[in-house]
Amino acid sequence: MRHAVISTILAGAISIGVTAYSAGSAVAQGVNEARFASDGQVMIPEDWRQWVFVGTPLTPNALNDGKAPFPEFHNVYIEPSAYAHWQKTGEFANGTQIAKELVLIRQKDPDEMNADGSTGEVSGVGYFQGEFTGLELTVKDTNRFADQPGGWAYFSFGHELPYAKTASAFPAETCNACHEASAADDWVFTQFYPVLRAAKP
Amino acid sequence: MRHAVISTILAGAISIGVTAYSAGSAVAQGVNEARFASDGQVMIPEDWRQWVFVGTPLTPNALNDGKAPFPEFHNVYIEPSAYAHWQKTGEFANGTQIAKELVLIRQKDPDEMNADGSTGEVSGVGYFQGEFTGLELTVKDTNRFADQPGGWAYFSFGHELPYAKTASAFPAETCNACHEASAADDWVFTQFYPVLRAAKP
Repeated sequence: MRHAVISTILAGAISIGVTAYSAGSAVAQGVNEARFASDGQVMIPEDWRQWVFVGTPLTPNALNDGKAPFPEFHNVYIEPSAYAHWQKTGEFANGTQIAKELVLIRQKDPDEMNADGSTGEVSGVGYFQGEFTGLELTVKDTNRFADQPGGWAYFSFGHELPYAKTASAFPAETCNACHEASAADDWVFTQFYPVLRAAKP
Repeated sequence: MRHAVISTILAGAISIGVTAYSAGSAVAQGVNEARFASDGQVMIPEDWRQWVFVGTPLTPNALNDGKAPFPEFHNVYIEPSAYAHWQKTGEFANGTQIAKELVLIRQKDPDEMNADGSTGEVSGVGYFQGEFTGLELTVKDTNRFADQPGGWAYFSFGHELPYAKTASAFPAETCNACHEASAADDWVFTQFYPVLRAAKP
C-alpha cells in the first residue's frame, strides 16, 4: 500500500518507482535513463549515433574461422550524461547506457579481398566500415537489475535492419560471464576504449 | 576603406570579415565555425571526442610494411552542427569541421601479436584501440579557403601528445590530391563512414 501511494506521488517521474530517489539512483546522479516499456522491455534509443563514441574493437570474420563472435567492427558509444558523470567521477552512474553497433567490413570487391579480410584503399591496406549489422545495449541499474552482476543488463535489438524497437534482457550468465571476468572497469572493457581512459579523472 | 568600415561594424562577429554574411557562409547556414588565431592558424577544437563519430578506417602498420600512411585506427568525427546540416541537406555546409584522431593498435603483449598485427582477446582475434597518436582536422570554407579545391583545408596538430594548440593549413596538393580523386562526397570519404551514409536524406 505504501509503495502504491508513493508511486502515485511520483507518477510524473517516468514511473521508475520508489527506488528512483535513493542515493544511488540515476535521477539522483543526473543521468538520462533508458526508456522501458510497460512489459519491462527496454526501448531502442533514439540517437545512439550521436552519443559519445569510445572505441571500436574489430574482429574480422576472416580471422575468426568465418564467424566472429561479434561481426566485425563494434562501434561503442556511451550516453552523454553518463559520459559527463564518468568524466567527473571515474565511475559509471546508475542509469549508464552503453550501445554497441556492429558494422561489417566493407567489401569493395570480393575478388580483391585478402585472405585476412583486408582490402587496399587509397589510404593503405586495411579494414573499412561497410554496412550496419546489429545493435546491442547495456544498462547499469543496481535497483532495476539487482539480480544482474554489477547491476548491468544486456540487450540486443537484433542483427537485421531495421532493428527491433524493444528488447528483453539476456539471462545474467550470457554476457556477464565475459564482462565480469575480463573487463577493466566495472564490467566495461575500458582497456579497449581510449576515449574513456583519457576522460577518467 | 569600405571594407574597413564594414569590418568594424561586424567586429563582434568573430571577425571573419564581410563574407561571413554571404548566402553560403557558415553563419548563414547555422554551423559552428572553427576558431582561428590572428595569424590565420586554426585552433585545436575543445571537444572533438564529443562530436558525432562517423567511422574508423583501420590500416595496420603490420599490413603496410611497418608504416601505414595514417597509423592505424582513424577515428573520424564531424562537428555536431555540421552533422545536423548534413542530415537535413545531404551537403557539407561552409564551416563544416571533420576531425580525424589516430589511434595505435593495442599491444597486449608484443610476444603474442600475430604477423598481421592482430591479437587474441575475449571477443575474438582482431584489432583493439590502444593509445592516441595524432589529431588532424579539415575545415570547409569556400570563402576563407577559396584557393583550396572544394574549399577544404587540412591541418595536423601533430603525432605526439599533448597535441599542438594551433596548426597551419597544408599546401593544397598535400591532402586534396587523394581527397579530390577518391572521396565519394564533396572531398569526404563517405564510402568509409556508415554513419554519414545512413544520415544522408
